[in-house]
Amino acid sequence: MKLAIIGLGKMGGNMARRLLKHGIEVVGFDFNQDAVNQISLTNGMIPASSVEDAVSKLSGEPRKIVWIMLPSGDITENQIKDLVPLLSKGDIIVDGGNSNYKHSQRRGAWLAEHGIEFIDCGTSGGIWGLDNGYCLMYGGSKDAADAVVPIMQALAHADRGWAHVGPVGSGHFTKMIHNGIEYGMMQAFAEGLDLLKGKEEFNLDLAQITELWRHGSVVRSWLLDLTAEALAHDQELSAIAPYVADSGEGRWTVVEAVDQGVAAPVLTLALQMRFASQEDTGYSYKLLSMMRNAFGGHAVKTK
Amino acid sequence: MKLAIIGLGKMGGNMARRLLKHGIEVVGFDFNQDAVNQISLTNGMIPASSVEDAVSKLSGEPRKIVWIMLPSGDITENQIKDLVPLLSKGDIIVDGGNSNYKHSQRRGAWLAEHGIEFIDCGTSGGIWGLDNGYCLMYGGSKDAADAVVPIMQALAHADRGWAHVGPVGSGHFTKMIHNGIEYGMMQAFAEGLDLLKGKEEFNLDLAQITELWRHGSVVRSWLLDLTAEALAHDQELSAIAPYVADSGEGRWTVVEAVDQGVAAPVLTLALQMRFASQEDTGYSYKLLSMMRNAFGGHAVKTK
Amino acid sequence: MKLAIIGLGKMGGNMARRLLKHGIEVVGFDFNQDAVNQISLTNGMIPASSVEDAVSKLSGEPRKIVWIMLPSGDITENQIKDLVPLLSKGDIIVDGGNSNYKHSQRRGAWLAEHGIEFIDCGTSGGIWGLDNGYCLMYGGSKDAADAVVPIMQALAHADRGWAHVGPVGSGHFTKMIHNGIEYGMMQAFAEGLDLLKGKEEFNLDLAQITELWRHGSVVRSWLLDLTAEALAHDQELSAIAPYVADSGEGRWTVVEAVDQGVAAPVLTLALQMRFASQEDTGYSYKLLSMMRNAFGGHAVKTK
Amino acid sequence: MKLAIIGLGKMGGNMARRLLKHGIEVVGFDFNQDAVNQISLTNGMIPASSVEDAVSKLSGEPRKIVWIMLPSGDITENQIKDLVPLLSKGDIIVDGGNSNYKHSQRRGAWLAEHGIEFIDCGTSGGIWGLDNGYCLMYGGSKDAADAVVPIMQALAHADRGWAHVGPVGSGHFTKMIHNGIEYGMMQAFAEGLDLLKGKEEFNLDLAQITELWRHGSVVRSWLLDLTAEALAHDQELSAIAPYVADSGEGRWTVVEAVDQGVAAPVLTLALQMRFASQEDTGYSYKLLSMMRNAFGGHAVKTK
Repeated sequence: MKLAIIGLGKMGGNMARRLLKHGIEVVGFDFNQDAVNQISLTNGMIPASSVEDAVSKLSGEPRKIVWIMLPSGDITENQIKDLVPLLSKGDIIVDGGNSNYKHSQRRGAWLAEHGIEFIDCGTSGGIWGLDNGYCLMYGGSKDAADAVVPIMQALAHADRGWAHVGPVGSGHFTKMIHNGIEYGMMQAFAEGLDLLKGKEEFNLDLAQITELWRHGSVVRSWLLDLTAEALAHDQELSAIAPYVADSGEGRWTVVEAVDQGVAAPVLTLALQMRFASQEDTGYSYKLLSMMRNAFGGHAVKTK
Repeated sequence: MKLAIIGLGKMGGNMARRLLKHGIEVVGFDFNQDAVNQISLTNGMIPASSVEDAVSKLSGEPRKIVWIMLPSGDITENQIKDLVPLLSKGDIIVDGGNSNYKHSQRRGAWLAEHGIEFIDCGTSGGIWGLDNGYCLMYGGSKDAADAVVPIMQALAHADRGWAHVGPVGSGHFTKMIHNGIEYGMMQAFAEGLDLLKGKEEFNLDLAQITELWRHGSVVRSWLLDLTAEALAHDQELSAIAPYVADSGEGRWTVVEAVDQGVAAPVLTLALQMRFASQEDTGYSYKLLSMMRNAFGGHAVKTK
Repeated sequence: MKLAIIGLGKMGGNMARRLLKHGIEVVGFDFNQDAVNQISLTNGMIPASSVEDAVSKLSGEPRKIVWIMLPSGDITENQIKDLVPLLSKGDIIVDGGNSNYKHSQRRGAWLAEHGIEFIDCGTSGGIWGLDNGYCLMYGGSKDAADAVVPIMQALAHADRGWAHVGPVGSGHFTKMIHNGIEYGMMQAFAEGLDLLKGKEEFNLDLAQITELWRHGSVVRSWLLDLTAEALAHDQELSAIAPYVADSGEGRWTVVEAVDQGVAAPVLTLALQMRFASQEDTGYSYKLLSMMRNAFGGHAVKTK
Repeated sequence: MKLAIIGLGKMGGNMARRLLKHGIEVVGFDFNQDAVNQISLTNGMIPASSVEDAVSKLSGEPRKIVWIMLPSGDITENQIKDLVPLLSKGDIIVDGGNSNYKHSQRRGAWLAEHGIEFIDCGTSGGIWGLDNGYCLMYGGSKDAADAVVPIMQALAHADRGWAHVGPVGSGHFTKMIHNGIEYGMMQAFAEGLDLLKGKEEFNLDLAQITELWRHGSVVRSWLLDLTAEALAHDQELSAIAPYVADSGEGRWTVVEAVDQGVAAPVLTLALQMRFASQEDTGYSYKLLSMMRNAFGGHAVKTK
């Protein structure tokens, strides 16, 4: 089994390494040639000097499989377009990145017009996937889905962390919802731990409690495992800024809920609290303070 | 008609002035003797040098009416207790402050044991009440409620801004819910205006738009009137800190919803956003940022 | 001054009547010919038998003004396209309906290519606009905006309920945010009144309290005026189904907040509670009940 | 080691069995004598015919330990009061139920006046604790906490699921927050799965996806394990009513957040959605529908 991977960053690089360890041949390309060289040297990846070179090194395969692992948006869009003239009927493009599922549906339809199969693969597991294996949820035709099974088995956690969940688009859709749930779970833990810390009279040891909860409690989870480990090293977090980034999937999940007309208040609030953390002017708060002053003469806190 | 007012601060002082203007005799006391002197001098209030003195100056009235206008909590509690030995059966204590309705119920029951009537009066209108008249919602026995009607008529907006809404406790309960709604309305305006401002490509004039909405729109309201006026002077609000205080009633409304087992998400969120504005450490945000780093290797923004 | 109105439904018909009362000549067309005939008969509108006929009856005007008042989406889109060949350079199309502002921006750009001016006008005031006047917030070029001022003055509340707020798109944008705020205010009132009713021991009269709040309280507003009037007739609402419809603007406001990366939790929750009211299967609740049973053996309520 | 357990219901009975299996002697009492007899017969518990009898059967122990496992509130309160005359200085009462931590603090202070130690123990693990071991978080003096260690070791998951977290009250406080987080996690999963199901065009298999996520995904957790198992049997849940019960801890967590002045929107919303599921009249929705009709003439859906 042999495939090409375009994009050898934090995720793509580790996936290449894991595939190589499991006996899959990987042709790798990245604009960062150092990344290509390093994985080739240490893991035996076949280096490519360009996308064209990568595809050409798949010649002889019954069907070429090109896995792209790039930032979502225009970069992924353009890469897919550029691949089409290099591929033949029945070849397969896998987008393993975090693309919007609607884009994946559109791309799949467009590739189908060119006779090229498309698989949209949501990939969970983060930096731990290299050793633990990934969780892979992918969409595509049955034919294409079957063809990539050996790759999925190599990447996945314990040969159980992969599934063909439906047609093109359903892989990234499922991953999007996964991330929405992740936001909600993270926010639930953050709020609860904040309340534990806020109860100053008890002077609770959050490292002790999160470690304890890992054993037999209802909230035990991988997020809790990681949280307990991090808190064991530092529970003041004084070097960390109170700023939480967000990515496309959290936002798309909220838009999806609006599109479906379904209440998803916890997933939504989890995103909105991240927005609040990113806020730097606090204009809405200023407005509220101004209004209180206007009707009640309440003192306004000035800067 | 003659009554005593204990507490001549921002609210109590203006209420005394309004009563005097409407021909009600007012005996006034405050620990701040300057406040007593000023209102006596400019508005003809009968000054009292102590609570005892204030009550004694009601002698001759068929039933003594003492209106207390003090900070909620222990100060109001203690004042009510101290009044009991000074009053006789059938006399009336009115608590016009923002007390928790459960405390008012308890106090009413306790005063009833001493034969003293209790009226809990929620008072809305803020600093504008002096000129516009207040909105008064009060609870108590029918007998006591009838006895204070002339006072309510003098205080109220256009003789329509008062009502006896139910038994002791119901006045402060109704005011509590009023304030809960107020929080929700304020937050709705703040969020909407924040989004107007956030749409930089339109460079909208928030003073123009809020003024416009006052005329014929669905959101026209007194809060909008005040907001438009304030924004006409300054829509950057750069001198105002992004910090929003909260008072008891907003919190009690949320606890009431929990007690009733009723979803009140907007009233609750409006309070919680004020909490978020008051937050200075951002511990929950730090936890989220830490978790993102732990599972995904995402960069943490440092201070 | 003379204009054509396409669409004489609940909103468009009343706007035609108001314009006619204020001395503006109106050519009117609707696929419902009865609507055309009725307004012509009772208000002196010039009837048109088709869109073409309506436009032709504007010949002689220095620049033709066509106001469309149609359901948002494809109907409005197609009408705008169909108008282009009928109009000349410098003529003006006004979309007074509830279109998505992004669509208005796109349409404005497309019309500009054809030399036609576009005004996107958000219209608030509902069924009360006929008598009270509307609140009109509109976007467009300065030239076009100036040209429609006499129309806006005739439609608006007290000659103050209109404003040119910015470029094309900004009118519908401002109206969208207006409606988002409206959702939040409505939900705040609904939650508060629900808690008043839920406090059974006080047996509160919601008609009395909402009427009271109209006079001097902080929450006084037009929504409260209407609510008090409705509750005066019926406060049990037993004939009304607990189902709340939602329209595009509420949803677009939430998507806008996500696009801006701004927390708008109250506007969002107000929409989501409407979604919850529309829900008929309660699948998420079933899932929660199933989980409680799975970990705690808690009894599941069956149908 | 020997202790008495008062209350042999779903939780207490299983805890008695687990202790007996691990070589701890248990004297058991319950008003349901069948429960007493059954555990005595099958697990060798020493049966008691009354609370007095249970305590007397601890005579000879260096310090008596009585573990109560009763519904929170008055039943627990009264049992603690009734135990005092039966115990001696230095004896220990453990409340392993779901009491409000403020009550536990009060009870601990009162028992201390009588020379009796009090331990408030939050117990997680549900019906799975018998086999898997429980997660126990308890508060109390160091002396008392040390004395019960062998019991905790026998009850706990893998000898790691127990910890002395702080003074009296801190055990139930920690359990309360644990349950608050649990509500948030459950709601996050419910919303996400609801959106998966709502995307009808993909016809997703929720049993497949939840099983998949158990392997290597970021949301893997015990709640997911249970959910996947349940969905494998039935993913329509058609026999389950869309009604979600709530218990004290979820509510107390929200009140705690209000008391601390800390935003905990996700924990709060998770509770409020349960309230919404319990709602049967939908009065707030009726109000909203009425308002829409009042200002916009929008049709009201009738029953």
